Amino acid sequence: MRVAVLAHERFPERAKTAVGILRYADHDVVAVLDRASAGTTVADHRSDFDAGTPVVEGVADAPAFDALIIGIAPIGGGFDDSWRPDVRAAIERGADVVAGLHYFLNDDEEFARLADDYGVELRDVRRPPDDLTVAEGVARELDCEIVLTVGTDCSTGKMTTTLEMVEAARERGLDAGFVPTGQTGIVIAGAGIPVDRTVSDFTAGAVERMLRERADDHDYLLVEGQGSIVHPAYSAVTCGILHGAMPDRLVLCHEAGREAVHGYESFRLPDLDRIAELYVDLAEGVAPTELLGCALNTAALDEAAAEAALDDCAETLGVPAVDPVRDGAGPLAERL
Amino acid sequence: MRVAVLAHERFPERAKTAVGILRYADHDVVAVLDRASAGTTVADHRSDFDAGTPVVEGVADAPAFDALIIGIAPIGGGFDDSWRPDVRAAIERGADVVAGLHYFLNDDEEFARLADDYGVELRDVRRPPDDLTVAEGVARELDCEIVLTVGTDCSTGKMTTTLEMVEAARERGLDAGFVPTGQTGIVIAGAGIPVDRTVSDFTAGAVERMLRERADDHDYLLVEGQGSIVHPAYSAVTCGILHGAMPDRLVLCHEAGREAVHGYESFRLPDLDRIAELYVDLAEGVAPTELLGCALNTAALDEAAAEAALDDCAETLGVPAVDPVRDGAGPLAERL
Repeated sequence: MRVAVLAHERFPERAKTAVGILRYADHDVVAVLDRASAGTTVADHRSDFDAGTPVVEGVADAPAFDALIIGIAPIGGGFDDSWRPDVRAAIERGADVVAGLHYFLNDDEEFARLADDYGVELRDVRRPPDDLTVAEGVARELDCEIVLTVGTDCSTGKMTTTLEMVEAARERGLDAGFVPTGQTGIVIAGAGIPVDRTVSDFTAGAVERMLRERADDHDYLLVEGQGSIVHPAYSAVTCGILHGAMPDRLVLCHEAGREAVHGYESFRLPDLDRIAELYVDLAEGVAPTELLGCALNTAALDEAAAEAALDDCAETLGVPAVDPVRDGAGPLAERL
Repeated sequence: MRVAVLAHERFPERAKTAVGILRYADHDVVAVLDRASAGTTVADHRSDFDAGTPVVEGVADAPAFDALIIGIAPIGGGFDDSWRPDVRAAIERGADVVAGLHYFLNDDEEFARLADDYGVELRDVRRPPDDLTVAEGVARELDCEIVLTVGTDCSTGKMTTTLEMVEAARERGLDAGFVPTGQTGIVIAGAGIPVDRTVSDFTAGAVERMLRERADDHDYLLVEGQGSIVHPAYSAVTCGILHGAMPDRLVLCHEAGREAVHGYESFRLPDLDRIAELYVDLAEGVAPTELLGCALNTAALDEAAAEAALDDCAETLGVPAVDPVRDGAGPLAERL
């Protein structure tokens, strides 16, 4: 699929989705739309990106594409009206539009009418399907190995770790698929269910449904986890994913040095080995699992401190520990 | 509040909600509507019920009341059109109507118009409020003791145990309030949030909101749990309630002899002490708790076997074990 990615005035630092698509998606990115840096290429911004991908002013300057993806998410998830001409032009060129905003394109009268006129699809990935049901408890019977990233907290790198592991697995010739559960991952993957927006009774069922749809296509399914099992607000989603996915193995994601729950600072994080044990015990009540490895976010540390933190973590947990951003997820993929 | 309870052709055996209201609610039940046994009193059906409460043919024969409660829930949660004349008549008498059905009275054109004309409220308790948010993590700071019933499975007696404990606590002069989380409990209580129907991210937040609203009114809040932390489909809801409520103490509910998850028979239940430990460990990751006691459903056993099962259970867990239906929840309430 050829895609154009809208990232006006935010590429690359504040365009997490756009960067994720460039780095991990199977899509052929024909252009990034950013009026603030039009005339450059994406390689001018990140040296590992493809210099063949231009940054352009708007849809009019982009080569042919099948879908326009909104690659930025302002706080609050609103739609910025300055994007309207590009969305309109994309539809008029016969392209689908994909967005992970709280504002649903399908509820926008102009876009809905235009999409109808031009026979294109508006995909609001933050809206869960309305035919979800409770889990049947069959993930363990699927003919593929399931690996789930779990965390000590929110924002510890679960999506990045999962995507890096998929990439590293593919580099090693393994047939690995990515199962997204949050809106950024879904936009990157082009499909998926935002598990944190489903009816609570259907949390595990939503994950199970994605696994059933993808199990025949891959030998390994790597599931993006959410939240943490000891999070005062989000643990329901974490637990539903854990039991809906019935992972054969877990990768524990942690930010080096974080000691309290982000945004809930009065809640201390349990020790790393304690939380790992809790994940394994909780999973085992439904389907046994084991720890494959640990992904440590060491962005705040210098190289020597990062090295020491990784060693410490590996010793505590008795499994390999890597920083997938610093070093890639090779050592984790090798354990598959 | 004076209420009439609709239970046509199902009272008392197949009218769990109606029986629950008669047994546990604070309401003054002026009549039960059941055309199949009109002319009797509720005491003719259950000897511990009040002979002053008549069973009548329909609303026309009922004394004055403030609300009509739908006290039965057919499989699928539909509205039986044979109830329509009673709902209509109740509205025309100026009474509110309360229902826990999947079919929303507010979406029924006739009822919505009538309710508007007569200035009465239609309360669809299965519809969560639309302004729910994520939990703030403050339940532990509330000025009351919180007790949560948790289970080894669905349908192990969590609602009944919670209601029996509230009753037993009140008999002992304690100021205990009931916090319902499912539609039957909510109809019995007259208010509450159906936690299994909220957006998954708001599961803990929904429970926390109910606790904050009620904490100033009671010394003890007894929260009705849902599902089980090792349920392949419903554990998300269980975990959200556990962390949203931050209970000081837990009561573990189990059906004697049940060895597999109901409806998911390939999943064995963990040993009772193992599951109790898992609940305490999982809760502790957010707020420490301890086991107060065990409620065992021994309905399938004779008295001697029930006695033996209770002894066994108490020894395994090291806390009092009772069958609240057989013996009441006195020994649990005494531990408050």
